[in-house]
Amino acid sequence: MAGSVASLLAVRRIRDKGSTRYPLECIIFQMEESSRFSQATFGSKVMVGKANLDIAAKARDKDGVTLPGAMAAKGYDFTKLKEAVRKKGELACFLELHIEQSPTLEQKGLPVGIVTAIAAPIRTHVVIEGKASHSGGTAMNNRRDALVSASELTLAVRKVGNAFARREIVATVGNLTVSPGAMNVVPGRAELWVDLRGTDRAVMDQAQAALEKAARAIEAVYDTPITFTILGADNPVPMTPRIISLMRDVAAELGIPHTPIVSGAGHDTMNMAAITDVGMVFIRCRDGLSHNPGEFATIDDIMAGADVLTETLYRLAV
Amino acid sequence: MAGSVASLLAVRRIRDKGSTRYPLECIIFQMEESSRFSQATFGSKVMVGKANLDIAAKARDKDGVTLPGAMAAKGYDFTKLKEAVRKKGELACFLELHIEQSPTLEQKGLPVGIVTAIAAPIRTHVVIEGKASHSGGTAMNNRRDALVSASELTLAVRKVGNAFARREIVATVGNLTVSPGAMNVVPGRAELWVDLRGTDRAVMDQAQAALEKAARAIEAVYDTPITFTILGADNPVPMTPRIISLMRDVAAELGIPHTPIVSGAGHDTMNMAAITDVGMVFIRCRDGLSHNPGEFATIDDIMAGADVLTETLYRLAV
Repeated sequence: MAGSVASLLAVRRIRDKGSTRYPLECIIFQMEESSRFSQATFGSKVMVGKANLDIAAKARDKDGVTLPGAMAAKGYDFTKLKEAVRKKGELACFLELHIEQSPTLEQKGLPVGIVTAIAAPIRTHVVIEGKASHSGGTAMNNRRDALVSASELTLAVRKVGNAFARREIVATVGNLTVSPGAMNVVPGRAELWVDLRGTDRAVMDQAQAALEKAARAIEAVYDTPITFTILGADNPVPMTPRIISLMRDVAAELGIPHTPIVSGAGHDTMNMAAITDVGMVFIRCRDGLSHNPGEFATIDDIMAGADVLTETLYRLAV
Repeated sequence: MAGSVASLLAVRRIRDKGSTRYPLECIIFQMEESSRFSQATFGSKVMVGKANLDIAAKARDKDGVTLPGAMAAKGYDFTKLKEAVRKKGELACFLELHIEQSPTLEQKGLPVGIVTAIAAPIRTHVVIEGKASHSGGTAMNNRRDALVSASELTLAVRKVGNAFARREIVATVGNLTVSPGAMNVVPGRAELWVDLRGTDRAVMDQAQAALEKAARAIEAVYDTPITFTILGADNPVPMTPRIISLMRDVAAELGIPHTPIVSGAGHDTMNMAAITDVGMVFIRCRDGLSHNPGEFATIDDIMAGADVLTETLYRLAV
């Protein structure tokens, strides 16, 4: 919402400056979040022709409503989505404004971040096979405890994340399940979901290799075979250098304190980069909270972000 | 089943030897397992007057059948359970035969174990509060990851179990859950279920204190408050020393290789110890498997166990 409102303000203010060489469009993408139909940044994927419409046609929400059905209920026609596709070269550039969704700007005491790249994840499903046995009857030195191995792996993921932090890697085990999961049974199996993100695919691949190496050591020590299944490995998206520079100059001229920043989360801009030059401005948000009723940014910070967006847009458009 | 069949054989063989000073009874307890009505060793609890019949009257299986209802369907009357109570001093002793349910005897290459004590658990529910945040947007040094702390605690549980293993402690995290449990969210909360067992309550309390100390260190390092809730803390049950000695003598005389052994799992004997002297014989089982279609003991081992039981019973009864 913050992004959308500020973008509208920016467009209005440029319009007030008079005519531009390139016409301006304000886009509010639908379905940026995957919460209802399990497809993230769907609007921008449609716009760049990357959306899988066959799969989307069958997507259902938790109440069984299909995406075409939900669109029809709002007066939209799913079959016309193809008409939204924009070709490469058709747009001069695409800029996006968004709250940071992390506390970096807040901690640095800065209202604005100028995004240098949108990180991409390598997502891995890990299965660890141990041996379920009675917790009372199985001696400590006689166990093949899948959860102990999973715990070692979780700490290894953190260690890899720390080791590669300066190279813009973050690594997370977001979920872990145990079976059979009973108080009196040594866990026989554990599953983990690992999200490793970075801004440089080569560095991401190095970090992922370090993770797999750690897993091989853990399975050997505990006699618990570990299998990795890559669920997805996307390429990070760098912002266009000339737009990064321009945003930096603009912020400096306007006297708005700012910093280069990496976006850990995905945004519509990462799709739009397939067809045009891109840039992105982040606004400080309270406590890094997002997707939460507590999400908050001050009007001053929203306007600081909008000012950078406005002036950058204007200079690109005239 | 192995225990019950061998007990019957033992009683028959003593009968063949002629009359005894004390009459013999063969008991096959119902509901030793908690699987259907969530109450373990219910039969022996009833016999020693320790069963909570008010709670048992309301117990339901997963199909909603009550325990009194299930009993009535088999021709039994729940209200008459009180008539099964035996008073302290009424029985001269109680012996039990059981498969080991662990691979200790198999690994030692011995057919028979003479139980010295039945271990008891301290069961703890642990809650770890971190802070849920975006896995892509939250820097490694800016996380309060509840799963990382839970992993450290799981390894600490193992470490405490190893440190106290010579003092007959085993320690297990049997289950762990994570929330929100999404691939792209740093875990904000984790729950663990810890089972710490031993044969000496003082040692168990020391080990439990070591565990809580480890938790305090982990919560300080990761800024993730950890709360312990003790779900139950039972006292271990030692077998009667004169019966342990007698069983050892009998096994030696019969030329049956044997070893003293601790029962990590609970058994009806632990309840019967409240009203009489007790002893227990373990039989080697394949791969420690129990409660499993693969459970297996050889006829030779079953008979070796039955022989120790028979001769011990005879000497106690004549």
